[in-house]
Amino acid sequence: MNKIADEVKEMSADVVKVGLLGLGTVGGGVIKTIRSQQEKLTSRLGKRIEIVKALVRDSEKQRAVSLDRSVLTTDFDEVLQSDVDIVVEVMGGVEPTYEYVRALIEKGCHVVTANKELLAKKGTELVDLANRHHVHLAYEASVAGGIPILGVLRQFLRTNDITGVRGILNGTTNFILTKMETEQQSYHDVLKQAQELGYAEADPRSDVEGFDAMYKLYILAQLVYGESLPLEEVNRRGIADLTAGQIRMASELGYRIKLIAQAHRRGDGIRLSVEPTALPTSHPLAQIQDAFNAVQLSGNIVGDLLFTGRGAGELPTASAVVEDLAYLLTQPFIPHPAWKEREAATSSKEEVEGHSLCYLEGSGPAATPDQVLHFLRRAGVSVHKLKVQFDLGGVLRAGLITSGLEQEHADLLTSDFGLQVRCFPLLGDA
Amino acid sequence: MNKIADEVKEMSADVVKVGLLGLGTVGGGVIKTIRSQQEKLTSRLGKRIEIVKALVRDSEKQRAVSLDRSVLTTDFDEVLQSDVDIVVEVMGGVEPTYEYVRALIEKGCHVVTANKELLAKKGTELVDLANRHHVHLAYEASVAGGIPILGVLRQFLRTNDITGVRGILNGTTNFILTKMETEQQSYHDVLKQAQELGYAEADPRSDVEGFDAMYKLYILAQLVYGESLPLEEVNRRGIADLTAGQIRMASELGYRIKLIAQAHRRGDGIRLSVEPTALPTSHPLAQIQDAFNAVQLSGNIVGDLLFTGRGAGELPTASAVVEDLAYLLTQPFIPHPAWKEREAATSSKEEVEGHSLCYLEGSGPAATPDQVLHFLRRAGVSVHKLKVQFDLGGVLRAGLITSGLEQEHADLLTSDFGLQVRCFPLLGDA
Repeated sequence: MNKIADEVKEMSADVVKVGLLGLGTVGGGVIKTIRSQQEKLTSRLGKRIEIVKALVRDSEKQRAVSLDRSVLTTDFDEVLQSDVDIVVEVMGGVEPTYEYVRALIEKGCHVVTANKELLAKKGTELVDLANRHHVHLAYEASVAGGIPILGVLRQFLRTNDITGVRGILNGTTNFILTKMETEQQSYHDVLKQAQELGYAEADPRSDVEGFDAMYKLYILAQLVYGESLPLEEVNRRGIADLTAGQIRMASELGYRIKLIAQAHRRGDGIRLSVEPTALPTSHPLAQIQDAFNAVQLSGNIVGDLLFTGRGAGELPTASAVVEDLAYLLTQPFIPHPAWKEREAATSSKEEVEGHSLCYLEGSGPAATPDQVLHFLRRAGVSVHKLKVQFDLGGVLRAGLITSGLEQEHADLLTSDFGLQVRCFPLLGDA
Repeated sequence: MNKIADEVKEMSADVVKVGLLGLGTVGGGVIKTIRSQQEKLTSRLGKRIEIVKALVRDSEKQRAVSLDRSVLTTDFDEVLQSDVDIVVEVMGGVEPTYEYVRALIEKGCHVVTANKELLAKKGTELVDLANRHHVHLAYEASVAGGIPILGVLRQFLRTNDITGVRGILNGTTNFILTKMETEQQSYHDVLKQAQELGYAEADPRSDVEGFDAMYKLYILAQLVYGESLPLEEVNRRGIADLTAGQIRMASELGYRIKLIAQAHRRGDGIRLSVEPTALPTSHPLAQIQDAFNAVQLSGNIVGDLLFTGRGAGELPTASAVVEDLAYLLTQPFIPHPAWKEREAATSSKEEVEGHSLCYLEGSGPAATPDQVLHFLRRAGVSVHKLKVQFDLGGVLRAGLITSGLEQEHADLLTSDFGLQVRCFPLLGDA
């Protein structure tokens, strides 16, 4: 042991000075990881990693990891004026983070970030700025936690044409959907449990309304297609209006509802969507349960590849941050491919075509199975699969795999039959 | 289109000259891939890839891909004396391949290979030779086809301690096991179908006896642990003796039998095994069906990661070869970490401890459920779960999840009760 320690010391005449912006869950994980893997990092880099500054909101707060009092600061200028070589940004948000990261890049600091919102909103500028200042901007941790999906796309899948990318990019919503199915509980009950377990934030909107998954999809699209869409052009829908009845009905039809983020080419444009989607239970993404993430890529030569792992949490994200940091320290600077954003999308929000899984529920006098099916047949809607519950109280609950059911039909089902209608696009074969 | 073609032409004053050893299924796929992705490759490399020599057994044979007659040769010396920069080795086998690859490396050629047998048997020497001659030896295609698992281990998981690696590394056997379960057919019937479909070779031994998976596991262990075991120290068992009855019984107990390749640390040594293993049907590796491959890695920081894709076939393997080739052309030469082989393994072949799934079948007079369970209880074997069929003809078929059942018990069950006994180690929790 002593011998190794001595060797390490000799090698480490040189030190990499790291600054930290933010010292929350992930920041704490980064410090723990650097400490527990210090020997391995030192032998790989030939340098010791040292945390020299950490920007925090409250320097008096009790923390799970101990840092020398002199390292903590509440003043960003202290970080900027220190001699850090690399900054790890894990404070989140766009303001003031964007200004901080800009200033650090302009000073010549490499930046490692886990901040998907910052990248989705300011990535184009930051990539350009980093290129102009010849510094690395590394962000593996921003998408799918510990799964090295961005590295794989940048290094090992560049000969293939990637024809599509889809995945489960948000662990909180996948946890909620899994619990709603397995325990047949309502969205609100499960959300409450998830908050108590620490799987969901007190303000869960970024997760449950699909913003978090949308930011990650935006970043994936930049790597896969070399461009992305303005965020307001992403077809985004969350999970907060899903009911246990819809999920149970889907299950009876052989489907599972997941919050699927997808990017694919459409004509000469691209289409991005984040929405609750029905998958056949045999689909690989339907198997991803609890807080796990998964990304499926389709390459024209390699076929489909699926990558699965924990997408969030202290250590998986910290793993991605520290692996990224160590990787960039062994790489010469190469300009990062520029990010582009399409100015005007061509109707990327158009309705999904093809098959969908529709859930109907209501108790109007006309809401009988016969009359509803008769209406659909006359309207030219095809019903490929059907499950109906029609109880003595006259409540109809029906699940249909359909094609050709459009908004006007849904409106008529509501106005003329008193039915609530909720349709989910299908992924995979119907 | 013309504009792009012109630009490409200008960039490609420089050409990468590639030689091919072997022009079978994968070799044909490599040529198709280089042709279909030529524009992309050229813009990435700044050079055009050109196949200048291809070593074949029979230069008159009709082939799916057309190559200029002058490119084909049956004489290795023509390849060696040509001006190739890189050689792609897809001829397979160890002799004469090893001599060819040695000669090319000594001449200063980079080598890309998909040959797991060559690497498992001669990798230590070849890695060392390539390092001494400052050439790349790239072999992503040798393990898990198109899944870039070796690249991920070498580049993106170097800070983590990898505590274990396990996977389904052979598509043929996974296809056979899937069919045996879903169609309740015998091993021999399914093997015949697999051969007709081209999923299995006329001589299937390398696949069904676990050699192919063992070679791949050997390579994975080199990357994960920096060392491997002599092949004869790997605990290897194939699938040829499995019966549909065993697979059905496992399924009734909630398990699926897969040919699992595993490497893990044990004390200060490592243990490698390839053997039919019972997995709870909810285990991620139990979900991998048909000819797919999957690799699961456990990192001490990142947790479990799972990578899935097509592990064999013309295009997935060709994808890995061409991605590897393009990647190395953009990388400076860095010595490859040396491979090591432990000389004397410390009893890596010891019996698996812990839980196992045991299948008993027979019709001796003592082979009644009561008497067998009585015997096991007295012998101190714990039975955690049990399924019994005992038909009117006196044939007992039993599936047990047990702990403590050792070879001596199995021998007594055979000699005293007339039962055939087959036990499978369990992966995951019992």
